Amino acid sequence: MFKPIYLDNNATTPVDEAVRNEMWPYFLEDFGNPSSPHFYGLRAKAAVDAAQRKILSALKVDEGKVILTSGATESINLGLQGIAFSKKGAHIITVLTEHKAVLDTCKYLEGMGTSITLLPVDPNGLINLDGLKNAITDQTELISVMHVNNETGVIQPIPEIAHICHQNNILFMSDLTASLGKVSINVKEMGIDLVTLSAHKICGPKGSGALYINKKAQDKLNTPMIHGGGHQYGLRSGTYNVPGIVGLSKAMEIIDEINGPAALKEMRDMIEDSLEKLGGIRINGRNAHRCPNVSNLTITGVGNKELFSITKNQLAFSTGSACNSASTAPSHVLTAMGLSAEEADSTIRLSLGRCNTKEDIKSVVEILTSAINRIRKYKMEIRA
Amino acid sequence: MFKPIYLDNNATTPVDEAVRNEMWPYFLEDFGNPSSPHFYGLRAKAAVDAAQRKILSALKVDEGKVILTSGATESINLGLQGIAFSKKGAHIITVLTEHKAVLDTCKYLEGMGTSITLLPVDPNGLINLDGLKNAITDQTELISVMHVNNETGVIQPIPEIAHICHQNNILFMSDLTASLGKVSINVKEMGIDLVTLSAHKICGPKGSGALYINKKAQDKLNTPMIHGGGHQYGLRSGTYNVPGIVGLSKAMEIIDEINGPAALKEMRDMIEDSLEKLGGIRINGRNAHRCPNVSNLTITGVGNKELFSITKNQLAFSTGSACNSASTAPSHVLTAMGLSAEEADSTIRLSLGRCNTKEDIKSVVEILTSAINRIRKYKMEIRA
Repeated sequence: MFKPIYLDNNATTPVDEAVRNEMWPYFLEDFGNPSSPHFYGLRAKAAVDAAQRKILSALKVDEGKVILTSGATESINLGLQGIAFSKKGAHIITVLTEHKAVLDTCKYLEGMGTSITLLPVDPNGLINLDGLKNAITDQTELISVMHVNNETGVIQPIPEIAHICHQNNILFMSDLTASLGKVSINVKEMGIDLVTLSAHKICGPKGSGALYINKKAQDKLNTPMIHGGGHQYGLRSGTYNVPGIVGLSKAMEIIDEINGPAALKEMRDMIEDSLEKLGGIRINGRNAHRCPNVSNLTITGVGNKELFSITKNQLAFSTGSACNSASTAPSHVLTAMGLSAEEADSTIRLSLGRCNTKEDIKSVVEILTSAINRIRKYKMEIRA
Repeated sequence: MFKPIYLDNNATTPVDEAVRNEMWPYFLEDFGNPSSPHFYGLRAKAAVDAAQRKILSALKVDEGKVILTSGATESINLGLQGIAFSKKGAHIITVLTEHKAVLDTCKYLEGMGTSITLLPVDPNGLINLDGLKNAITDQTELISVMHVNNETGVIQPIPEIAHICHQNNILFMSDLTASLGKVSINVKEMGIDLVTLSAHKICGPKGSGALYINKKAQDKLNTPMIHGGGHQYGLRSGTYNVPGIVGLSKAMEIIDEINGPAALKEMRDMIEDSLEKLGGIRINGRNAHRCPNVSNLTITGVGNKELFSITKNQLAFSTGSACNSASTAPSHVLTAMGLSAEEADSTIRLSLGRCNTKEDIKSVVEILTSAINRIRKYKMEIRA
C-alpha cells in the first residue's frame, strides 16, 4: 500500500524497531507486576529499575527521581498541580505559547486559587527575560517554560531562565518533549528542576512518559493526582506499565542513533531553501534559535486546509497541533507571535524525524512546490 | 529456564498472544496520532473508535461513553474525584474492603471537603444492605462498591446495591477489574452507572484501562484530573495510547475463550478440596458467592512469609496485594473481615488465570501440601 510521506513527527512518531523488540518479552514472557515479591515480580522490578537508570543517564543528571507516567500531559499536570497544591496561594509563571497541557492545567489551577502569570512572546516566539524577572513575586513557586516549542521549533533561553529561577529560589520546570533527540540535552547543566517528557515523540511507545524531579523539587512536590497503593514515592499510584517503561528507556538510550540533529537540519534546510524561492513564504521563528526538525511556514495566498487537501494522498503534515484535538481555532502559538487569524490559516508545520530520508524530502519539495503554485494560480485566475 | 507456576493472576496476567499480535502493527506501521486529520491519524482514529465499540459491546451496554485511561487506578480516581469535585459538599459511600485506589482517593477527597462513609463487612466480606440504606444522606452523590474483591474473590450483591442507588437517585460506581472474564458481566442489567476496569488483569497490556460512564453519570461528571488539549470529551487529555487501547479491546473481545469461569472453578476446587484435608485450613469468604479464580486461605500454624520462602522456586503467589506496594501491614481486607493480624499473616492468596492448567494445579497441591506439612512439623518439633 502506498502511504503518504510522514512529516508530522511532532504529533507522534513510529516506534523504532529496536524499541518494539525490547518491549516485546515484557508483554508475555516477563509479564510480572513489579510490586510482587516473587520471581515474576522481581524480574519486572529489575526491568523498571534499569529503565529508570537509563532515563536518568540520558537526561545527564546524577540525582533526583523519575516518576513514570502515562505521557507528557500527565507529567505536566503532576508537576504543575503537585507544586500548586503543595502550597496555598502559590504563584506560577508560564508562557502564552506553552503546550495546552500547561495552559489548560494553569487555567484549572487559577480556578482553584493559584495565581497564574502568562508571559507574552516577541514575533520570534521568545520570552523577554526582564519581563520574566518583573513577573516574579514573593509567592512565585514555579516557572514553567518549555525548551522547544512543538509548533515552531523555537528554543527558549533555558540556562538564562534557570539562572533567574535559582537566584530567586523558585523551581524551574521545562517540557523537553519536543527537544529530546533533536537538541543536545544536559538537564543538570541546563538547570531544570522538573523535566517532563513523552516516549511517543522519540520513537517510543504511546502511553508512557516521565516526570523527572531533582531533590529540590522533591522537597516541594508532595501532592499526587492519582491515589491508591502508594506507588512511586506516593506520587503516582497504579501498576507500572512495564513494557511502556522499557520502551521509553530504550527510546532514550538510542535517541542519537539515526537522524540526529545534523541530518534533521540538512533535510529541513532543503525544504526551506527550496520553498523560499517561490516567494511569499515566511519561516516563523526564523530569527530565533530553532530546533532542527521543525519548519513552520506561512504561505501567502495559500490556505493551509486547501494545501492539506490537495496533497493529502502524498504528504502527511499538520495545519495545527494534534495535541489541540478539540479545537479548530487558529493556533494560540502563532497568534501569540503576532500572526493574524488569516496568516495562521495559511500556515503549515512540517516536523521531521527518524523515518525521513533525503529522497523523501526531494519529493516533498516537488509536491509542495507544485501544489502551492497550483493554488496560487487558481486564485489569480478566479480573481481576474 | 524453569519458572515457578504462576498463581498471582489478580496481581497481573501475561498478555495473550492474540492480544500482543493485535497490538503489534500499531507501534510501527499504523503509528498515527488519532487527533491528526491525515492518513496516519485517520487510521489510528478508526482503530480507537473500533476499540471503544468492542469495549461497550463486551460490557453489554447500548449507550454511554468509554474514557480511555492508563489503568483501573486512574479510572477509579477519575470517577471518584470527578463526581466529588463536580458538587461541593458531596457525600460518597464506599466499603472498608475496597481496593486502595478507592480508599486512598476517598481519604484524599475527605481532606478536600468531601464527606466519606466507609461501610463495614461481615466475616464473609459482604456489606449489609440495610447498613447501606441507613448511610444514605441528602448529600450522597455516589456509592462505590467493587464487584469482586481482588483478595478474596467475594462477590458483592451488585444488582441489589444498584437498586438502592437508583431508588435514591444516587450514582453507582463499581470496579470490575477482578471480575471481568471470571464472572458473567452485563453492566446494563447490573445497573452500574460508572464502571472501572484494567487491561492487564485480563491478559491485556499494562498501562491501559477504562472508565465507562452512562448518560446519567456523564451529566454529573465534569471535572477532569488530566488537563490539556480537551481530548475525550474534555474528561481526559493526552495522546491516545493506541496499541494499549487496541490491546484492551482485544482482551475484552476474547475474554471467554480460554479458561472461562467453569475451568477456573474446577482448578480452584481441586486446590481447596485437597488442602482442606490437611485440617486447620480456613477458606475466607467461603459462605459468600465467590469468584471462581481466587482462593484466600488461612493456614493455621503456617506463616505466609515462611510458606512463600519455602516454595518460591516452584510457586508464585501472593501474601497480600501487589497493589498495596508500599505496605507490609496486614491486609485491610482480611482485618475488615475480622481476621486478627496473626491470622492475616497466615493467609495466602492463590489467583488462577488463563495460563494455568490442571496439570499445574496437581503440582501446586503437592508442593503446598508438602510445604505446609514441613512447616507444621518443624514448629511442633521446636515447641516440643
